[in-house]
Amino acid sequence: MDSEKAIMKTLNVALVGAGTIGRMHARHLWRAIDGARLHGVADVFADGAKACAEQNGGVRWTTDYNELLADPAVDAVVVASATDTHPDIVEAAAKAGKAIFSEKPIAKSIADGERALGAVERAGVPFQIGFQRRFDPNFARIKQAIVSGEIGKPHIAHLISRDPGPPHVGPVGLGGGIWFDMAIHDLDMARWLMDDEAVEIYTQAGVMIAPGLEKFGEVDVAVMVLRFANGGVVTIDNHTDSAYGYDQRAEVIGSKGAISIDNTYPNNAVLSNAAGLHHSVPLPYFLDRYQAVYRDEIQVFVNCLLQNTPMQVGVKDARASLALAVAAKQSHEEKRPIKLG
Amino acid sequence: MDSEKAIMKTLNVALVGAGTIGRMHARHLWRAIDGARLHGVADVFADGAKACAEQNGGVRWTTDYNELLADPAVDAVVVASATDTHPDIVEAAAKAGKAIFSEKPIAKSIADGERALGAVERAGVPFQIGFQRRFDPNFARIKQAIVSGEIGKPHIAHLISRDPGPPHVGPVGLGGGIWFDMAIHDLDMARWLMDDEAVEIYTQAGVMIAPGLEKFGEVDVAVMVLRFANGGVVTIDNHTDSAYGYDQRAEVIGSKGAISIDNTYPNNAVLSNAAGLHHSVPLPYFLDRYQAVYRDEIQVFVNCLLQNTPMQVGVKDARASLALAVAAKQSHEEKRPIKLG
Amino acid sequence: MDSEKAIMKTLNVALVGAGTIGRMHARHLWRAIDGARLHGVADVFADGAKACAEQNGGVRWTTDYNELLADPAVDAVVVASATDTHPDIVEAAAKAGKAIFSEKPIAKSIADGERALGAVERAGVPFQIGFQRRFDPNFARIKQAIVSGEIGKPHIAHLISRDPGPPHVGPVGLGGGIWFDMAIHDLDMARWLMDDEAVEIYTQAGVMIAPGLEKFGEVDVAVMVLRFANGGVVTIDNHTDSAYGYDQRAEVIGSKGAISIDNTYPNNAVLSNAAGLHHSVPLPYFLDRYQAVYRDEIQVFVNCLLQNTPMQVGVKDARASLALAVAAKQSHEEKRPIKLG
Amino acid sequence: MDSEKAIMKTLNVALVGAGTIGRMHARHLWRAIDGARLHGVADVFADGAKACAEQNGGVRWTTDYNELLADPAVDAVVVASATDTHPDIVEAAAKAGKAIFSEKPIAKSIADGERALGAVERAGVPFQIGFQRRFDPNFARIKQAIVSGEIGKPHIAHLISRDPGPPHVGPVGLGGGIWFDMAIHDLDMARWLMDDEAVEIYTQAGVMIAPGLEKFGEVDVAVMVLRFANGGVVTIDNHTDSAYGYDQRAEVIGSKGAISIDNTYPNNAVLSNAAGLHHSVPLPYFLDRYQAVYRDEIQVFVNCLLQNTPMQVGVKDARASLALAVAAKQSHEEKRPIKLG
Repeated sequence: MDSEKAIMKTLNVALVGAGTIGRMHARHLWRAIDGARLHGVADVFADGAKACAEQNGGVRWTTDYNELLADPAVDAVVVASATDTHPDIVEAAAKAGKAIFSEKPIAKSIADGERALGAVERAGVPFQIGFQRRFDPNFARIKQAIVSGEIGKPHIAHLISRDPGPPHVGPVGLGGGIWFDMAIHDLDMARWLMDDEAVEIYTQAGVMIAPGLEKFGEVDVAVMVLRFANGGVVTIDNHTDSAYGYDQRAEVIGSKGAISIDNTYPNNAVLSNAAGLHHSVPLPYFLDRYQAVYRDEIQVFVNCLLQNTPMQVGVKDARASLALAVAAKQSHEEKRPIKLG
Repeated sequence: MDSEKAIMKTLNVALVGAGTIGRMHARHLWRAIDGARLHGVADVFADGAKACAEQNGGVRWTTDYNELLADPAVDAVVVASATDTHPDIVEAAAKAGKAIFSEKPIAKSIADGERALGAVERAGVPFQIGFQRRFDPNFARIKQAIVSGEIGKPHIAHLISRDPGPPHVGPVGLGGGIWFDMAIHDLDMARWLMDDEAVEIYTQAGVMIAPGLEKFGEVDVAVMVLRFANGGVVTIDNHTDSAYGYDQRAEVIGSKGAISIDNTYPNNAVLSNAAGLHHSVPLPYFLDRYQAVYRDEIQVFVNCLLQNTPMQVGVKDARASLALAVAAKQSHEEKRPIKLG
Repeated sequence: MDSEKAIMKTLNVALVGAGTIGRMHARHLWRAIDGARLHGVADVFADGAKACAEQNGGVRWTTDYNELLADPAVDAVVVASATDTHPDIVEAAAKAGKAIFSEKPIAKSIADGERALGAVERAGVPFQIGFQRRFDPNFARIKQAIVSGEIGKPHIAHLISRDPGPPHVGPVGLGGGIWFDMAIHDLDMARWLMDDEAVEIYTQAGVMIAPGLEKFGEVDVAVMVLRFANGGVVTIDNHTDSAYGYDQRAEVIGSKGAISIDNTYPNNAVLSNAAGLHHSVPLPYFLDRYQAVYRDEIQVFVNCLLQNTPMQVGVKDARASLALAVAAKQSHEEKRPIKLG
Repeated sequence: MDSEKAIMKTLNVALVGAGTIGRMHARHLWRAIDGARLHGVADVFADGAKACAEQNGGVRWTTDYNELLADPAVDAVVVASATDTHPDIVEAAAKAGKAIFSEKPIAKSIADGERALGAVERAGVPFQIGFQRRFDPNFARIKQAIVSGEIGKPHIAHLISRDPGPPHVGPVGLGGGIWFDMAIHDLDMARWLMDDEAVEIYTQAGVMIAPGLEKFGEVDVAVMVLRFANGGVVTIDNHTDSAYGYDQRAEVIGSKGAISIDNTYPNNAVLSNAAGLHHSVPLPYFLDRYQAVYRDEIQVFVNCLLQNTPMQVGVKDARASLALAVAAKQSHEEKRPIKLG
């Protein structure tokens, strides 16, 4: 983005990856984002790319994302493809000089991550990583309580993230598993809330739900403990088969008080009968809970591009969260605390 | 109580009525009240009187309460007999010069009430009526919010009292029915919380639960609306067959805010599973919910006697609540608003 | 709407009234409604009409709504103008053969209401009245509990609607006051939830907040009690200056259980410190709380038009809610219960 | 306790230690426990022993607990003295053949603990250790959910225990510090809830609140992670200066659901005003929260003695919790996970 583009009114955004999350981004870019428009869709599956393009304004589509990167009309790229393809696409988009919004994780290894993020740094292109929870009103309220001093210096935080279904054992090489798909969100949240960097991580994890997962080198339950530079301690609870649905809560205690957040629910009705008082389970999955937030993070990305202001969740966050996820996995495998950076 | 007795350390209390609530008072007087001891038990059923006396310290017992009233050692009487007997016993106790704690209601008609309360006033004996909810920490918190000005001038209050079982259709002449057993508590609470006297009452009531109740002149669901002298409005919801158990809540909105209270529960656990989030029903009945409060009201009665301070819930409250209950019933029967005093 | 139009894919909708709520409808029609598009805007204030039209796709605008009614391209009209203008505009739109969505109330008198609704019936045009709360997930959950039998036969309901600011004393003739702006929503909700028609209403109301309001014939606090044909009783609490913001809750007890709903909040964080546990006040106003619901009710209107299915909240509901609001006011003025229909 | 005593109706109980918690036990034994009576009080401070004895029935008192142990009338001993004296007193009481209720911890070292518990085992006397939370209705509800299978096999538990004041830095040698006073309760609770034994513990702890505590070898914040034999993982959060008061909550997720419990509060009122919705802080300290529970655990002890049934929280629990507290401290000091038994 050169300065000329900064004054333009509407950004052209290309989408790479027309899966579940990519289609959601496409819908938002088509109808719900100010200052940007969907320009094209790329997906290795032609049918998916075509359908997504047609349903969102009839924009161009392709099975080769390089075509979109080569399109001078494209100002920015949203990378929502399979996890393993993130490093290559981000690297290519950086080399093409496009502003980049990438879904998390940036990669599943330090080497791949550095390849992509190094390219971004060398190209000097704006880059936002998709930690959407930072834009959620509930998590943001905790952050505000810490930044404003309402709870004083943060001492201990507890983060709970539980997925509603048994872990999906797909073809090897796809998906990030518990460390790179789930924990990485909480590891980023821990850094953001504590406003600090972790210096040590210890993991207790195992296969409790889906026997056989071990052979993929995966676990389905993990508990992590992080110590931060300033002494603060964070626990993370990742469970992949919550019977009551998608569960994401957080709590922080500091020197002056504590703050906690609950899930969000389809309704808040309480039904009372002889068997007890009954409340709905939480909104069932991340696309339900964070629907508006996914729109908002793209709007923030677009606003920063249009106003030429720094990205709010950038290269440093992509890099640090990856390092933590790698260390969490290592701690589990080596059964010892791992020191960081 | 003459001045000589005011300096004594331990009051002798006679109990009249050894039913469910009488036995509870006996237990408290035996082991849990400071400055008083159970001195004797009277009940028209000899077995009940005897068992209650034996289980609570082996005190004297009788089927004729006049024997206890004639006992010069008796300082105070707790009247916990059947509703219809309250006026006679209170009148006799007043004439005997005893301090009196009477369960509510004082009577089921204005005439009977005046006979008993007039005797109390003429004798000048201390008198407390058993509106135990005033001593409950939750209702007391609302009162405090109003007295302290936290919510400003009270505008509207809602009181909900729902019993957990279908109305008991006993022999005619026993029990106070919805107006004198249930509503009278809420009518007193309305006066206490609004810190004002009602000037009009309107009732919507009927038989919704137990067909056949009409022939006893009773209803099983009643909604009342009271207007107070200062303009405040109170609604009362009385339901006699709450599927989820004993339910007593209140809410008041004033010029500066609102305050509400919930029920109390055997535990506060939340069980989450695929069917929802589940919480226990409230404590099942008034003896469970107000167990400690029933002790406290007797302790307050004893303290006031020992310290020679005015009764906290006295003749005025017994009289006004009775007038309101009579008017609530009249409004239902005549299907029009009833003006008060 | 003739059958030819029923097969079209996109309806042209004209908006009459570009005030706060009209501009919201315009935004939704422009970007967020499937199967319809904003076609034009009318407002007596030219600047308002023009700005609204320009900000929402640059559609045509006028100060004379008759121009839009005369436009054969217009399929449907959304009436969001000042309350007093509803009857004339609805009547004219009906005569022009347009499908009509009208904000509530249809009128402030039975005569005006009949003039408008009679015209709708004679013209046979589809008509939806804007009781948006019926589409709210929380109120809808209560309705579901009643319809499905979860709580059995409904006995008593309590509806609370409190506005966050002192009543706006505008020029005489504008606005519906507590009866036609506030209570009418709750009166409709009472009918919908009880699935029954009211046979009697009694009101206790007065000026508690804004002295001087009496000279406009208005009150700022009102409590209503309705008896329904099947014996059910509903109370309505309307307060116009809630210190803690917009408050809309409901509770129903039936023969098998009860169900209650709470407000919605900007976040669900609980801050704990030495002063207590603190939670945000509810979303501040109806446009915040019901933002998505206002979109949904128009989508339902459009869907019914496109699919040629009956309106879900129609002439009967507009008529009955108006009759109840008139009776509620009359009960207050005549200080007696009013029988209905 | 020989068989002769098992048929007696009322046990004579001697109290050793008339500090805060000892005086509470004395009150309960005097007035609120069925089947037992307070027989005598010993405390190294004569004034304390005398006052406690006089206020609770005027029983005998002494500064030498051996006098009470030598009294053949004494059936059981309640040990509520300073932590460091527990091993000696328990050992002596065991040798004297008395039934023993000991406050936790049994000791602050494995060696001392074994000396005391070994004596108990050799003497074959009944022994209960004071983990009163097991008798709390909230924690008991979690246990029930696990035992009954409601939440399936437990996977992860979180225990939070936060004290309301800065840690008390008393004379060296008194008090158990965070490991033996606070954590030991949670370590016992972890074992009880998971119905399993821990095989590894890892601690992250430090001085965050009271600088200077390090020189006593103490910390004021500690987070522990335990792995159990069956794979379950438990985190424990111990904080010694919670701004909002005493905080003890728990949550367990299993294969079929989750269960969590909240604190208990002096009242449940919600005050709503412009600044938010406000709720009281929890009951301020352990004596408030667990008042009834402290009575109940002694009643259970007495019942088991009278009925000659096994102690419910016995030698095994005292031993295992001590081993865990020692390991938690060691993990902190050696900065590595510690394997157990």
